[in-house]
Amino acid sequence: MTANQAVSHSMLREIFEEPEALRRFLENESPKVNEIANAIRSRRISNVVIAARGTSDNAGQLAKYLFEYVNRKPVSLAAPSIYTLYGGALDLADSLVLGISQSGEGPDVNEVVRKAREAGALTVGVTNNADSQLARTVEYSILCHAGVERSVAATKTYVTELAALYALSFAWASRDDLQNQLRSAIEDSGRVLETASVIRPLVERYRYMTQCVVLGRGFNYSTVLESSLKLKETCYIVSEPYSSADFMHGPIALIEQGFPAFLIAPPGKTMPGMVELTDKLLERGAEVVVISSSEALLKKATTPVKMPVEVPEVLSPLLYIIPMQLFSYYLAVTKGFNPDQPRGLKKVTMTT
Amino acid sequence: MTANQAVSHSMLREIFEEPEALRRFLENESPKVNEIANAIRSRRISNVVIAARGTSDNAGQLAKYLFEYVNRKPVSLAAPSIYTLYGGALDLADSLVLGISQSGEGPDVNEVVRKAREAGALTVGVTNNADSQLARTVEYSILCHAGVERSVAATKTYVTELAALYALSFAWASRDDLQNQLRSAIEDSGRVLETASVIRPLVERYRYMTQCVVLGRGFNYSTVLESSLKLKETCYIVSEPYSSADFMHGPIALIEQGFPAFLIAPPGKTMPGMVELTDKLLERGAEVVVISSSEALLKKATTPVKMPVEVPEVLSPLLYIIPMQLFSYYLAVTKGFNPDQPRGLKKVTMTT
Repeated sequence: MTANQAVSHSMLREIFEEPEALRRFLENESPKVNEIANAIRSRRISNVVIAARGTSDNAGQLAKYLFEYVNRKPVSLAAPSIYTLYGGALDLADSLVLGISQSGEGPDVNEVVRKAREAGALTVGVTNNADSQLARTVEYSILCHAGVERSVAATKTYVTELAALYALSFAWASRDDLQNQLRSAIEDSGRVLETASVIRPLVERYRYMTQCVVLGRGFNYSTVLESSLKLKETCYIVSEPYSSADFMHGPIALIEQGFPAFLIAPPGKTMPGMVELTDKLLERGAEVVVISSSEALLKKATTPVKMPVEVPEVLSPLLYIIPMQLFSYYLAVTKGFNPDQPRGLKKVTMTT
Repeated sequence: MTANQAVSHSMLREIFEEPEALRRFLENESPKVNEIANAIRSRRISNVVIAARGTSDNAGQLAKYLFEYVNRKPVSLAAPSIYTLYGGALDLADSLVLGISQSGEGPDVNEVVRKAREAGALTVGVTNNADSQLARTVEYSILCHAGVERSVAATKTYVTELAALYALSFAWASRDDLQNQLRSAIEDSGRVLETASVIRPLVERYRYMTQCVVLGRGFNYSTVLESSLKLKETCYIVSEPYSSADFMHGPIALIEQGFPAFLIAPPGKTMPGMVELTDKLLERGAEVVVISSSEALLKKATTPVKMPVEVPEVLSPLLYIIPMQLFSYYLAVTKGFNPDQPRGLKKVTMTT
């Protein structure tokens, strides 16, 4: 691949726009987020429901952990078919219902939010499109400010959706400490792009990889899901995402000599489990790719990808997805695919 | 494979014990379930939280749809790490918290339930083990009455867990009509075992299958997840479970000539979408295995597996898993694996 080919793809350009998009989000949207946080605090909210699809659903997975850990409310990821196919009518009077969609035009997400608002829920939308159906349906909307995303594989809209969800969770909990950590992580995001020079040559080794697992836990379960989706969409790899704990309950049986496993492993509470898992994978002869800033864990890896920054575990999903976006991009190009136009996909998928 | 080999495996024997186990559950546990339903109705319950792992988590997925559709409460599938790793303390005073575990000994599920009970939640356990930690931790427990399960691959404990969850949901909603449908579906379960004679010869075609997707939607998302897990555990196939709607948001890019897709497709609200999906898969040259009682859909399939009974859609997960359990069993044996002892797995997985 020549440098010229790289520049011609929207996906790579859009990954490199992430730091700027994140800063734009913070600068423009913080007052609105504070206003919504006030509205939430003025209501009796006993639980949160999140409606999203695809990449936005992976952002929703992070929101589940955030709203449970930081805001202490049980979070349900909506099953849209309950609303769209079965005509379900949930009792959502005490619920905060959050729709997440970069385009804001997914009919299923909009239907969940519309019914929730009718049922008396407090509704909030996170979208990159101010003129969308989602923005018109919800009581409050938060805009991503990512700019137009041309690649079908979502990258900068994913990280700005994450930023929006962090900002909302932290403002709702009045956690200035965490808001400062979010600001720092956004400042550090540019440095994570330096991993591109490491990842670009090492994807060669995976030219003929057709299947893999992506493992991680806790806050980074979102990163696991989104990394796996990117590998599927852009490289057509059958990549299985697993919480590392769920993986031990059955799927570890898949692992045999040479089976590739990607580990999302920032320092933090999940680290002891990730070290143990790495040892188990290596015993079985797996090929282990590790994304981490921990030298001790990187030393064990078949292929280490060192994160050039330290970040508090709760914020790590914002930065740890970036090397996996880069990996998916470079591997797609190495396999001869156009990551901007995956076969059989459109930018807006009209499922109900 | 000789008939003798078949009989020597616990997994096949335990699949064939399912009708009897289901009847035993209904006969023995119905009064207890009614008592718990009364306790639930006497409390203010605004949401449900479910804690489970592996096969039991797939049963939990059905419970999510049931409690949302039948009981109209938003349902959250607990992320155990919030409780066990991060020390999260959720506000669960208005929650019904349900732990599901055949052994009742998973430390993570028990920790979620213990903390929930301390936080004032109404706690219920579903387990096959009356003397387990789970049974001792919860306020109320429902027993599966499946008898001892020897195969590591769970089968009869899965269907009896489903029965317990149906019974609880229907009793809580005082829906006698649905309770009668549950009884009928249990009566019909024996006839579904007749599919064994069809499935046993047809697995030959899949002797060298190494990857596949399993697709379905709505109530049968649970069947999709559990079918996929069985194929992984017993046949070491990289099988990707997808809600057919989520599948359209990215992963359909995987499908190329000959790629195998299993469709769980009972008649009902999801059928039009499954017909459309089948056409899309066939256009891309996929190999489509259909489990259905719909002659029209079966006609389109590369490999049709006809369900010999009709069942209301809400109850279909109880019966539609059976052919996929049989498929996983016969394919494992055809591949030369011992389905009772998957490599690297134990019956009780001690994750925290």
